[in-house]
Amino acid sequence: MAVPVGILTVSDKCSRGEAADTSGPALQRLLEEADGGASWAVAARQVVPDSAALIAETVRAWCGGGPGAGACGLVVVTGGTGISASDVTVQALEPLFTKRLGALATAMVVGSLRITPLAALSQVTAGVVGSTVVLAVPGSRKGAVENVQQILGVLPHAVDTARAVGGTRALHA
Amino acid sequence: MAVPVGILTVSDKCSRGEAADTSGPALQRLLEEADGGASWAVAARQVVPDSAALIAETVRAWCGGGPGAGACGLVVVTGGTGISASDVTVQALEPLFTKRLGALATAMVVGSLRITPLAALSQVTAGVVGSTVVLAVPGSRKGAVENVQQILGVLPHAVDTARAVGGTRALHA
Amino acid sequence: MAVPVGILTVSDKCSRGEAADTSGPALQRLLEEADGGASWAVAARQVVPDSAALIAETVRAWCGGGPGAGACGLVVVTGGTGISASDVTVQALEPLFTKRLGALATAMVVGSLRITPLAALSQVTAGVVGSTVVLAVPGSRKGAVENVQQILGVLPHAVDTARAVGGTRALHA
Ligand code: NA
Repeated sequence: MAVPVGILTVSDKCSRGEAADTSGPALQRLLEEADGGASWAVAARQVVPDSAALIAETVRAWCGGGPGAGACGLVVVTGGTGISASDVTVQALEPLFTKRLGALATAMVVGSLRITPLAALSQVTAGVVGSTVVLAVPGSRKGAVENVQQILGVLPHAVDTARAVGGTRALHA
Repeated sequence: MAVPVGILTVSDKCSRGEAADTSGPALQRLLEEADGGASWAVAARQVVPDSAALIAETVRAWCGGGPGAGACGLVVVTGGTGISASDVTVQALEPLFTKRLGALATAMVVGSLRITPLAALSQVTAGVVGSTVVLAVPGSRKGAVENVQQILGVLPHAVDTARAVGGTRALHA
Repeated sequence: MAVPVGILTVSDKCSRGEAADTSGPALQRLLEEADGGASWAVAARQVVPDSAALIAETVRAWCGGGPGAGACGLVVVTGGTGISASDVTVQALEPLFTKRLGALATAMVVGSLRITPLAALSQVTAGVVGSTVVLAVPGSRKGAVENVQQILGVLPHAVDTARAVGGTRALHA
């Protein structure tokens, strides 16, 4: 059965209606078309401004146990991963992580660097919040899609393991 | 002279005797056969359950100054690096690190990703505890061996430098 | 207009005059010759011993708002990134970071690993202090130059974005 996914676009401009959110829809297409649609079903999609409080609140609501869209198995946050002081996505997410998935972030970065050296400028990150896998990827449509593509093949395993209570651990780790 | 090594297998199942520990012996073979046996001599090998307290206690005892197996120059921990909540190896080790060796972990991850994309799912880490180099690698035999193989050539330098008091620093860093 | 750069060499031996600092001058040449001299102008160069307090004090003075060399857009610290207990550069810098640039560090490490496996032994790091980009690279001339070369093409973007107040964010992240 397809796993419920939350996609959060972080952008002052998109939240004010001054720009269209193209990254959120592109990520939805990427995930819902993967594996012939078998793996992922987007259950929530939202746009928030570059506010650490709003990012954290929305992600927490989408993760298991939250009161919002229920228990997403996967949350992808796009935007707010740049170098300027107003980019706060990583600072908002990392305190929520019950486990940091450093190798998953490294896989996104290393794969994206093969496509463009600009990948060095994004603070992508990955972690577990409760039993939900959470990714932060760049806000550009190209950067968002390219980062998730690097790990698309192992994401079902990641989400299954985060939800399992020990069951699938023999797999690799 | 060969450097004393501690190998710690973290696994609930192995510690209860429900599964055989194949990763610990495979790591011992890998290290003791490297450099014609000149570099490493396994001085301690143990299996503990997925308990942060037991992991930390054993590693601390094996590191310089501890009361246990004495001063290992290298400790390799295999297992407990997965995504599920019961995997606690990294959380147990990182508070002990007097120095984090991020590039050593990156080298393990990047090399392992070339072999399998599943390497993105393991929380490998590396650091110094006192004057001992400590690695955390996956619990599967294949994953454990493949990660250590990525850095096997530089491990003698790493351990020498961690033990030196400034002596070998001119080498590279 | 060329961006002001600070280059800090961290070395007990160089600070005591027992060894010549070759890494600082090599980094200056690399940066000032990039882009036909258009991008970078070294405004401050100094040698300090392996002291976390002196490293932090100097870097803080060079970053925006500090009383020292004024507002450098880029600070490169070379040395003190090794494994021995006396290497304290990363420990000195990371508490100053208002933002960690993990992917920039990963790009340096991954690129350097293609040149030498010894790159696994250096604790390179990157971050933003106020509106200044700060890098820590190895103390050897070869290691220092090779690490910066991996990201030389994106450094102008990085520095522009760190200084902008939202302006250039659409670029990628
Ligand atoms: Na953004």
